[in-house]
Amino acid sequence: MSLREVPVSVSARLWQDSPFMKACRREATPFTPVWLMRQAGRYMKEYRDLRDRNSFLDLCKDSDLAAEVTVYAVQRLGVDAAILFSDILVLVEPMGLMLEYAKGDGPVIHNPLRMAADVSRLSSVKDGSGLEFVYDAIRKTRKDLPGHIPLIGFAGAPFTLASYMIEGKGSRHFIHTKSMMYTEPDAWHRLMTKIIQSLIGYLNAQISAGAQVVQLFDSWVGCLSPQDYQKYVLPYTRQVIQGIQEGTPVIYFGTETATLLELMKDTGCHVLGVDWRVELDAAWARIGDVAIQGNLDPAVLFAETPEIRRQVRRILDQAAGRPGHIFNLGHGVLPNTPVGHVKALIDAVHELSDRSLK
Amino acid sequence: MSLREVPVSVSARLWQDSPFMKACRREATPFTPVWLMRQAGRYMKEYRDLRDRNSFLDLCKDSDLAAEVTVYAVQRLGVDAAILFSDILVLVEPMGLMLEYAKGDGPVIHNPLRMAADVSRLSSVKDGSGLEFVYDAIRKTRKDLPGHIPLIGFAGAPFTLASYMIEGKGSRHFIHTKSMMYTEPDAWHRLMTKIIQSLIGYLNAQISAGAQVVQLFDSWVGCLSPQDYQKYVLPYTRQVIQGIQEGTPVIYFGTETATLLELMKDTGCHVLGVDWRVELDAAWARIGDVAIQGNLDPAVLFAETPEIRRQVRRILDQAAGRPGHIFNLGHGVLPNTPVGHVKALIDAVHELSDRSLK
Repeated sequence: MSLREVPVSVSARLWQDSPFMKACRREATPFTPVWLMRQAGRYMKEYRDLRDRNSFLDLCKDSDLAAEVTVYAVQRLGVDAAILFSDILVLVEPMGLMLEYAKGDGPVIHNPLRMAADVSRLSSVKDGSGLEFVYDAIRKTRKDLPGHIPLIGFAGAPFTLASYMIEGKGSRHFIHTKSMMYTEPDAWHRLMTKIIQSLIGYLNAQISAGAQVVQLFDSWVGCLSPQDYQKYVLPYTRQVIQGIQEGTPVIYFGTETATLLELMKDTGCHVLGVDWRVELDAAWARIGDVAIQGNLDPAVLFAETPEIRRQVRRILDQAAGRPGHIFNLGHGVLPNTPVGHVKALIDAVHELSDRSLK
Repeated sequence: MSLREVPVSVSARLWQDSPFMKACRREATPFTPVWLMRQAGRYMKEYRDLRDRNSFLDLCKDSDLAAEVTVYAVQRLGVDAAILFSDILVLVEPMGLMLEYAKGDGPVIHNPLRMAADVSRLSSVKDGSGLEFVYDAIRKTRKDLPGHIPLIGFAGAPFTLASYMIEGKGSRHFIHTKSMMYTEPDAWHRLMTKIIQSLIGYLNAQISAGAQVVQLFDSWVGCLSPQDYQKYVLPYTRQVIQGIQEGTPVIYFGTETATLLELMKDTGCHVLGVDWRVELDAAWARIGDVAIQGNLDPAVLFAETPEIRRQVRRILDQAAGRPGHIFNLGHGVLPNTPVGHVKALIDAVHELSDRSLK
């Protein structure tokens, strides 16, 4: 899918010409664009205040508040893209699963899929229906965002959604998930098929509502061997990306994916997100003609500014000004990260990558 | 350090000529030797019965029981090496930390090291003292093991021990550990120095008691970027390995280490353990002249025998009969793994690698 052949209206020019969108298309930019996964989150006092009065899911489902949280982070930090405040698991409810965010414990699915028969009771979401609060939040965010700031929509990638559905919560060893892959490959195929049908409708509806880019989060995919990824995951992820509306860049991100990068690129994504475990230059040399997003260790934000700037400079040097680098963390901003350090990071990326100063 | 120049007594010939020891030295073997991390553990009914009557730490500290558990696993499975039943954290008690295994929660250190000043109250263990129960267990195990079965002693690697001491328990993001690295490098250096002094004495005392090989477990090292590993970890791990008694092979193992392998080899280890996230052949090509240990995903043991055998064959094919491959999992045997599947794995490795059948 080419990102260059789609005609755009004049009103879309502002964000189409933004450094972030140019970097997605691997065009030259005046500086390296930067945004951060979980840039709106617990580390911000304003967010914690909102969360004191609203549960996490309520915040996701209240489109006014979701838009407010999304836009506030952009204003506070001066980042080059917004990402919708939402969660990868909101999709599982209209598919028939009972989701809860237990206090302090992270998400729990009360009726996980453990056997082949369980897969049959899962619904596909047609055309993204049942998630109108997400599209409302996108419309409201788009309205409140400055015109030159692109908005990123997102969803969980097929493997990560499947593993949440099967394990019912975060997992260390993914035994139930891998057992279904190995011992019930037909059930795995039916599950992944329902997931990708739902994802395609969901992501395209986000784009129709006003998202300029979408990111697929494959948070758990790093638990797989390359062989298993190739056999059980790659074909499905590729179908999702092929199903996304022409002209919308797709960012594909996972952690602990050092040995999967070539296969992940084969999904057809336009931007590949990498974590700090890989050297940015070595990773980019391996994957070739695709944009790259990353890859500061979020723990570095607990250090003081000189160490943050030293590591930013190292990553920018590795990218060597090559078009197509989007600066980000290798994982979401961690709770308790000092907001001042996050702002210092954004400023450092802008300043140290400014091409007009070279 | 060469493994070939040390004279051995006639009584040591039996284990010195075993396939496992030969593979450590990268000599040809009649079949691929195999052992499994946590080969004695919760997945075995006999072990669970013992644990019903003894806490985990009591089992580690009762040298009769530790030896019994160690030897039983070898007899039950037919593996080619024994590994002492113990835990990497027993070393932290004589160093001054309060260790507890809370039921279902894993290890907890009640007085973790959070600030530079905390490091001062940590003791170095001189000559491995305070851990006589470990050496007793080694002597008893060595006496009960068949002469041709080598016994592996072990310890936590410096980074993993440091991160347990700082975090006080398992961690996902290692914020306290990385914060000390970045913001208090002097304290980090003092901590790592105390750890490596203790480790050298501890491992050499295990060897004096009768261990033929030692393994360093760097369970958490995969959370680091290559730059941070090189700066904050590699020099210390190398010193430990340099301090180990001449002639004893050192296996160095971690998980999620795909981007660290070259640096880990630079520690001077003789065998490098890899997990299933890397392709064995690609990993071995990168690290060159060192033996390799791995790398089946332990979750595969929940599949039936044909899938287990298929994956064993793939790994053996990747090793291509090159001397210096020790078959293992890429992580410990998981709880609830069917014992019959574990036995099927051992048999499959022996049968499918038998050079006399080729």
